[in-house]
Amino acid sequence: MPRTSIATVCLSGTLEDRLEAAAAAGFDAVEIFENDLLASAESPERIRARVADLGLAIDLYQPFRDAEGAPPARFEAVRRRMLAKLDLMGRLGADTVLICSSVAPDAIADDDLAASQLRALADLAAERGMRIAYEALAWGRHVSTWQHSWEIVRRADHPALGLCLDSFHVLSRTDDYAGIAGLPADRIFFLQLADAPRLSMDVLQWSRHHRLFPLQGGLDLVGFTRAVLAAGYTGPLSLEVFNDVFRQADPHRTAVDARRSLTALLDATAGDTVPAPELSGIAFAELGVDAQSGPQLEALLGALGFVHSGQHRSKPVQLWEQGDARILLNSGAGEAAIRAFALESADPEQSARRAEHLMARPLPRQRRRREAELTAVAAPDGTEVFFCRTEPGAEQVWLDDFLPTGEPPRPSTGITAIDHLSLAQPFDRFDEAALFYRSVLGLRDDEAGEFAAPFGLIRTLAIRNDDRRVRIALSVPVLRRGDWAPAVPHPQHLTLATNDLARTAGALAQAGIELLRIPGNYYDDLEARTELPAGLGDFVRRAGAMYDQDGHGYCLQLFTPVMGSRVFVEVVQRSGYRGYGFANEPVRMAAHRAQRLGATVSA
Amino acid sequence: MPRTSIATVCLSGTLEDRLEAAAAAGFDAVEIFENDLLASAESPERIRARVADLGLAIDLYQPFRDAEGAPPARFEAVRRRMLAKLDLMGRLGADTVLICSSVAPDAIADDDLAASQLRALADLAAERGMRIAYEALAWGRHVSTWQHSWEIVRRADHPALGLCLDSFHVLSRTDDYAGIAGLPADRIFFLQLADAPRLSMDVLQWSRHHRLFPLQGGLDLVGFTRAVLAAGYTGPLSLEVFNDVFRQADPHRTAVDARRSLTALLDATAGDTVPAPELSGIAFAELGVDAQSGPQLEALLGALGFVHSGQHRSKPVQLWEQGDARILLNSGAGEAAIRAFALESADPEQSARRAEHLMARPLPRQRRRREAELTAVAAPDGTEVFFCRTEPGAEQVWLDDFLPTGEPPRPSTGITAIDHLSLAQPFDRFDEAALFYRSVLGLRDDEAGEFAAPFGLIRTLAIRNDDRRVRIALSVPVLRRGDWAPAVPHPQHLTLATNDLARTAGALAQAGIELLRIPGNYYDDLEARTELPAGLGDFVRRAGAMYDQDGHGYCLQLFTPVMGSRVFVEVVQRSGYRGYGFANEPVRMAAHRAQRLGATVSA
Repeated sequence: MPRTSIATVCLSGTLEDRLEAAAAAGFDAVEIFENDLLASAESPERIRARVADLGLAIDLYQPFRDAEGAPPARFEAVRRRMLAKLDLMGRLGADTVLICSSVAPDAIADDDLAASQLRALADLAAERGMRIAYEALAWGRHVSTWQHSWEIVRRADHPALGLCLDSFHVLSRTDDYAGIAGLPADRIFFLQLADAPRLSMDVLQWSRHHRLFPLQGGLDLVGFTRAVLAAGYTGPLSLEVFNDVFRQADPHRTAVDARRSLTALLDATAGDTVPAPELSGIAFAELGVDAQSGPQLEALLGALGFVHSGQHRSKPVQLWEQGDARILLNSGAGEAAIRAFALESADPEQSARRAEHLMARPLPRQRRRREAELTAVAAPDGTEVFFCRTEPGAEQVWLDDFLPTGEPPRPSTGITAIDHLSLAQPFDRFDEAALFYRSVLGLRDDEAGEFAAPFGLIRTLAIRNDDRRVRIALSVPVLRRGDWAPAVPHPQHLTLATNDLARTAGALAQAGIELLRIPGNYYDDLEARTELPAGLGDFVRRAGAMYDQDGHGYCLQLFTPVMGSRVFVEVVQRSGYRGYGFANEPVRMAAHRAQRLGATVSA
Repeated sequence: MPRTSIATVCLSGTLEDRLEAAAAAGFDAVEIFENDLLASAESPERIRARVADLGLAIDLYQPFRDAEGAPPARFEAVRRRMLAKLDLMGRLGADTVLICSSVAPDAIADDDLAASQLRALADLAAERGMRIAYEALAWGRHVSTWQHSWEIVRRADHPALGLCLDSFHVLSRTDDYAGIAGLPADRIFFLQLADAPRLSMDVLQWSRHHRLFPLQGGLDLVGFTRAVLAAGYTGPLSLEVFNDVFRQADPHRTAVDARRSLTALLDATAGDTVPAPELSGIAFAELGVDAQSGPQLEALLGALGFVHSGQHRSKPVQLWEQGDARILLNSGAGEAAIRAFALESADPEQSARRAEHLMARPLPRQRRRREAELTAVAAPDGTEVFFCRTEPGAEQVWLDDFLPTGEPPRPSTGITAIDHLSLAQPFDRFDEAALFYRSVLGLRDDEAGEFAAPFGLIRTLAIRNDDRRVRIALSVPVLRRGDWAPAVPHPQHLTLATNDLARTAGALAQAGIELLRIPGNYYDDLEARTELPAGLGDFVRRAGAMYDQDGHGYCLQLFTPVMGSRVFVEVVQRSGYRGYGFANEPVRMAAHRAQRLGATVSA
């Protein structure tokens, strides 16, 4: 594993908070971002000592601005400033300083002048055994491409002057990075990595607010990193991410997310060190139930044709089964939500090793279902993720943890399996969760959406495995909610697949199960805008279902009200359809809101 | 006053919440945004009844998408959809529907086809006594300018087809709106108004997330509105603002903000109906003190040379004076912050009338300082804003409310006046507060900034009167803070002007007053990057001051620690300098944070 580093500006809190978080997450080094040093009450000597105590090093001091191309009259001030910063670096124990290309209005477009000035500064650094890494900012006044920064470094031809390559500055401007592989390795002094969503906006604002850790955005970090490593670069891989959310989130969590991104990037660049075993489905989902939601969910599952087939040997956990759909109701775990789920893995132990390789927190032994040695890790929001094999006769059969109740099988209502899980994420952890599930489970992005809920915008990302048997939809409010928007957490939900929604709906109606009431306005609009398959129009309205279509087919959806404080169940019949019903989410969310407020639907 | 209207999409909550908020804020009408109707559990008939009960009307139903330029085979579906929506409008009691220019990939670029299709749809509307307003979306597939939409309306030549003009769609693309004044008035069916900050980004994302109410952004709403009114348009002025923050904020507050923006816009367009009287300074600032902060502030003011000159006749309020600086310490009001301030107005009653004209909430009589009949209103965050005249002999002399303590005058320490107030705003109310202070007080924007505090980004906007004797700096976190960032509110502060910071600092030192400790790293950097005026370098470091410069001069600043829970005092000496020291804010905020955490500064 190459040396790993993180810029202090990626994290939140005091400089001390940031250093501790970087060390705890296992980084080898940090970049000290100048503003973070200035804001620190600690002297450079004490920061140096603290960094050493934490087992870190300071691999870069940055940024030094508006140096090259300065009019000669101003260059003396640049030189004086560099001397002061080199002294400071001596006190800090840092030996490399970043100069980013000048944005000064008075900067002169003259590569030879720039080279000679950088050479003069490199002389000052070399006298102190230090060196300068020169970087092209994407919005530099005259120097804004890696090719141009390299041309200046080449002309300066000084052993203490090299390049700093920053994935954001390169990839935000161009896909033309292949030439980096041909650079002399000893002239690349530093590598900064940041991803970002593909946004069409001013590059400076994009850079300052929306960067992400590698593999969280849309830039080609893998290709870029391969090119730099192909050049023979052996220095640190250092993260430099300016992100509004990370700036105000718990730095210990962010640092783990950051460190995971480097592991995932290196795996993607050089080949997985611990490949993700094939997943073949969702083995079970476990809902935490309380005195209110427990009976509601039992009644629902009964009406849906599930059989309460097993009772856990030692815990207050019921197993309900129908087809390949298995649901655990845990009455010893408090809040009603999706507290755990299990994935069918070709090799559960290997899945767990991969998760731990990617810094997933292993769950303590005593929290595992001991009897079957289920391997489990915690997702960023605390959801427990188990890996298991359900086939009878296999080595680890988690079903054996449950004593058979002897309840007889019941006629199917069409339910075949768990279709997908919808996991609402805490505001600060959305990008972390996406990277976690993607990398730990080896899933890919499927569909992203953004829609207006009654109390603000919601962002959604669905990810899946190759054959769509494992699907997870993540969602998060675009802004953290305040006093006006509901204080209750955004609900989680579990979607069951049916092969006959009419039959499933009939069974629910017969059992007197209340469904979420979809407003009549929805159906009027649906009929106005859609040519529904023959006979479906009446059915959809009568059944209280929702309808969506994509390029592959259509789907029918039924929803229960929210049970307890934060979980509900969806039943979906897919007829070729590959989506997640995001188009229906605004109406669905408003209907849930109305139901939770006890509002009545007018006739 | 022209008719006023607001689109339901500007507000948060259920449709019922939104309608109530619009009515309470005094709007005449609403636009029903289709998604808000679809999400409503109420039938169109009940919505119509509710709208009427609230004294509102539905002036527009919107949007109807992808109509014109449809391939003939698809146009039949468009026609069917329009019939359904016209039926719905009949049930709602709405008579105008908005068609926005098509974004459909299959749309045909043929103005005659578009005109004939719109004519056919207008026939359907006319049969029902309804009409269609056609709008060019800035990102329309073929029609994206107001000129183009007008050309199609002109060719269609149907009395039930007219234009909808939307300030965002026009101004986000062009400043060429003068021609609007020459349009026939009877062909402009509807006017939608939205402002926005000047952002360089994808126009669709800009429109969907960042619109603001008129005069809150950087578009020329005044010129645009003048052009539309000059054409003879007499229909509603309707707000259509998509904004991430408003979507999740209390709709009652947002609706008042929205309604205020229309009044301010009309005043700016047609001339102030109730002009803002000239302001000539900050008469006093009132701090709420508690058992901890009261003695701290008394000691500070004493050390600064203030005299406790008066005691309120009926309330636990002390008056402290020095030069033109007057500070009230109110120990009956709880939390230590700037709970009120008073402005010197040439005509306090007129100032109050203007505030009420702009929907400022007048403070109840019993909360006013009765004796002097001070007029006061509440700012968006609840801060009390008083208008008064301090000159002795004037009609209303608020100082008479205070009984003289007889304390003798003391030698000045240089303090001359209140320089400015820094008012931290609640997350949801920043743009509202800016418009409130700007419009109610007749102030102008002075300087905007954004900087990194230890726990996230902070946005700042300073506003002032012409001669800079009234200055207010507003600030807000860029994202609402969560669990990690400090739960304590962002502090407010009061800045006192001194004409001799060295003398002021000396007086504080002599009295043993503790100042905020600025880290040594700040001074090292200051000296590295700045040529300080002769002799100042040593002084600044020794005094624990901060230094900033702009194109006009320099300033010296001193800060106290936070007293009690959320207020501190700054002393500034300006030598030509016109700014607010924003460049020092990151270090200052970190130092306050360190002080509040009880951290010690290393030697």
